[in-house]
Amino acid sequence: MAKEILYQKIAHIIEEQIFSETLKIGDKLPSIRALQKLHNVSLNTVKQAFLELESKSLIESRPKSGFYISKTSNRKLSLPSMNKLKVSENQVAPEDLITKVYKSLDDKSITRFSLGVPDKSLLPIAKLNKGIIKAVRNFEESGTSYESVQGNANLRRNIAKWSIVLEGKLSEDDFVITSGAMNAIYNCLMAVTKRGDTIAIESPVYFGIIQIAQTLGLNIIELPTHPTTGVDLDALKKVIHKIDVCCFMSNFSNPLGSLMPDESKKELVKMLTYYDIPLIEDDLYGNLFFGTVRPKPCKYFDEAGIVMWCGSVSKTLAPGYRVGWVAGGKFKDQIIRQKQVQTICSPSIYQEVIADFLEHGRYDHHLRNFRSTLYTNALHFQRTVEDFFPENTKISQPQGGTFLWLELDKNIDTAVLYDTAIKQKIGFAPGRIFTHHNQYNNCMRLNFALEWTPKTESDLKRLGLLVKNAM
Amino acid sequence: MAKEILYQKIAHIIEEQIFSETLKIGDKLPSIRALQKLHNVSLNTVKQAFLELESKSLIESRPKSGFYISKTSNRKLSLPSMNKLKVSENQVAPEDLITKVYKSLDDKSITRFSLGVPDKSLLPIAKLNKGIIKAVRNFEESGTSYESVQGNANLRRNIAKWSIVLEGKLSEDDFVITSGAMNAIYNCLMAVTKRGDTIAIESPVYFGIIQIAQTLGLNIIELPTHPTTGVDLDALKKVIHKIDVCCFMSNFSNPLGSLMPDESKKELVKMLTYYDIPLIEDDLYGNLFFGTVRPKPCKYFDEAGIVMWCGSVSKTLAPGYRVGWVAGGKFKDQIIRQKQVQTICSPSIYQEVIADFLEHGRYDHHLRNFRSTLYTNALHFQRTVEDFFPENTKISQPQGGTFLWLELDKNIDTAVLYDTAIKQKIGFAPGRIFTHHNQYNNCMRLNFALEWTPKTESDLKRLGLLVKNAM
Repeated sequence: MAKEILYQKIAHIIEEQIFSETLKIGDKLPSIRALQKLHNVSLNTVKQAFLELESKSLIESRPKSGFYISKTSNRKLSLPSMNKLKVSENQVAPEDLITKVYKSLDDKSITRFSLGVPDKSLLPIAKLNKGIIKAVRNFEESGTSYESVQGNANLRRNIAKWSIVLEGKLSEDDFVITSGAMNAIYNCLMAVTKRGDTIAIESPVYFGIIQIAQTLGLNIIELPTHPTTGVDLDALKKVIHKIDVCCFMSNFSNPLGSLMPDESKKELVKMLTYYDIPLIEDDLYGNLFFGTVRPKPCKYFDEAGIVMWCGSVSKTLAPGYRVGWVAGGKFKDQIIRQKQVQTICSPSIYQEVIADFLEHGRYDHHLRNFRSTLYTNALHFQRTVEDFFPENTKISQPQGGTFLWLELDKNIDTAVLYDTAIKQKIGFAPGRIFTHHNQYNNCMRLNFALEWTPKTESDLKRLGLLVKNAM
Repeated sequence: MAKEILYQKIAHIIEEQIFSETLKIGDKLPSIRALQKLHNVSLNTVKQAFLELESKSLIESRPKSGFYISKTSNRKLSLPSMNKLKVSENQVAPEDLITKVYKSLDDKSITRFSLGVPDKSLLPIAKLNKGIIKAVRNFEESGTSYESVQGNANLRRNIAKWSIVLEGKLSEDDFVITSGAMNAIYNCLMAVTKRGDTIAIESPVYFGIIQIAQTLGLNIIELPTHPTTGVDLDALKKVIHKIDVCCFMSNFSNPLGSLMPDESKKELVKMLTYYDIPLIEDDLYGNLFFGTVRPKPCKYFDEAGIVMWCGSVSKTLAPGYRVGWVAGGKFKDQIIRQKQVQTICSPSIYQEVIADFLEHGRYDHHLRNFRSTLYTNALHFQRTVEDFFPENTKISQPQGGTFLWLELDKNIDTAVLYDTAIKQKIGFAPGRIFTHHNQYNNCMRLNFALEWTPKTESDLKRLGLLVKNAM
């Protein structure tokens, strides 16, 4: 990853201390001069760092006194509660509700807190378009010929090079290009499961995973998942003898935004290796970290090749390109065969464009800006929810990704609230779609990968008002 | 379809008479003047038509006598034999052989009689590239956003308009865009079958269909298939109580090039409607007809919505674009759901390019040239095989498409011959890969969608010599 600018580095260090509560609300920051000496930088660099922190509402200046950790950096609202393990309960997928939410996307005037993709204003569309034209000019056949089944070699090479979080453990031959991460997961499950097998997933969980599992005739066990630390490994242990495959988002899960600590990832991989249970790791949000470093995936701890590490540019760069990938470990050949049977190969040109973006550092450049916007947005959203939603609202504390998860008063049914909100041109994702049990009916997911405009802010406030009225 | 030029129309009429054997080898054609009066055209138009027929070796002029049906228009070699119905025989898919043939594609110096896609020299690559650049400029987002799950509306509208063979029975809402015809078939099978069901297919059959069926855990019944008239409906009747779904290429099947007569199509649809058995119709070669009109698909006769009509541009325009479609009849919604679960949507830009190609008649223009080249190539290939392969070679008589099917002396194993030929940089597709029974070991498929150059001709002659040596 490219070097951080100096002032950002200092700002990040302070942010980390705020996140870890080393610095608490109301604490006074060291003086600008003290920090200048500590980091051996110019006064201006420190000032710039403070400006950055102020713009995120993390610190505030008090006249003639200095800078303080501001109230919004700590939280008024509690974390959402964890679900209980339900193995035998009746299971009904909320297909109609999902269809309804999808259909609302046709109306462009609806504010899309519901959607799982970044607003186009946050994407480098002009640069991508230039990339397409360059690819057309450079490659005479530009996609008329069949691409290799495994995927464009140039793209695979660049993904391997760019995956420095794996510290060189993977090479181009380890990757298979897929039609987005969804398709990677689908192919992984086709490769390692048969009808009647059981899959363990997080809860709440991205509804697409439930849909794939049901399409393939798998039994589903939703594991209790902590809003900040992810899947409960003790719960997994209790049912491990029933499990044939796991599919987890270890980094910034959708919808909770939870991040499994490294120690848990290590333990998880060790446990699954022992029982020889494959792990599909959906890591498509891993690069959208708010901290200073990209968190490691479970794949990093995988010695036996049981982890299938899935990624994509759908949530970060170009949703419609449908470019994803998987490092399939010991299942790679079976995954390639699934891909070949389903679709022969993926279109070349988008693969070339993404390869070029990776190779010339444009993706990293974009990710730096994008992360910064997402982080600021997350803070704006959290503060607005704290100030304008009912006081008994519980709110997740994502450390990356693009989602907030809210747990509202237990008497509120967000499936009903959804209809009211849509009439007011406000969309959100009702909690019920993130589970196949009858739960999370009082929850909602908000996408904050939008432009933070006065309209966004006022729509979020109006949503808070709707919640209050519904109580 | 655009109007044919007058001389081509006359040439086609005579061709049809030759195909139907109304005109037989050695027959004298009416005089130029007689034809001029008959068709009410200029002398030059008739002369041009004769030139066209001469260039295809269909007629020859004898000095001071006139024009005659030439020897190459009729056949020295017989048609390949039909397989027998084998329901209970041991079934082994020739996976290793398929993999071997695929791998040979990496060596660009091999003459690709093996491949199922047209040589790039026959494709309008420069025009397609212009189409991409136009699409990037016209559509600001150009594929960064998710496309509709069902597929780009502009493309669906244009496919519906262009499908005049259906006489307006289909509209844009009937189509679902897929990642090539393979993916259409995969989605259709996912929509209408479950593990353990039985699928009826042609024999020999495109190996991809066998692979999909096996991946989905279906039992396969290969039906006897006539080299010119396609699936044997009497054989189908005998096993119909065992069948859950059919998948046929009614127009110019791969590898036989057979064409089901309209009456058979009608009877087939009636029979399947009666038994409520869905038919997946893979019609991706239907536009590559050598006759004067595009043959009707079974879909044309489908009143009950049981036919899923699959098409694609992979064999005609742009293999690597992965743009296919299916008019899914009453199964449309299930097909859309399969697509959404597997991959959410297809990339936009190629859909826009193909829509534009259809809308402005560029696809029809290309198809006219392409058909003409293919037809001439087919004649070249047939003549060369007749002259340079052993006399007991049997050869198909495709009325469209891109393949010839040869049945060689029963002592020849084309899987062994394949290795010899590859050493000489000549590829072909061994017969064994087109069945999951132990048969067609003495057959081969030749792709004639290549440029007919002296090298192509000499490689085909060399292949004939290899066959002779192997006897």
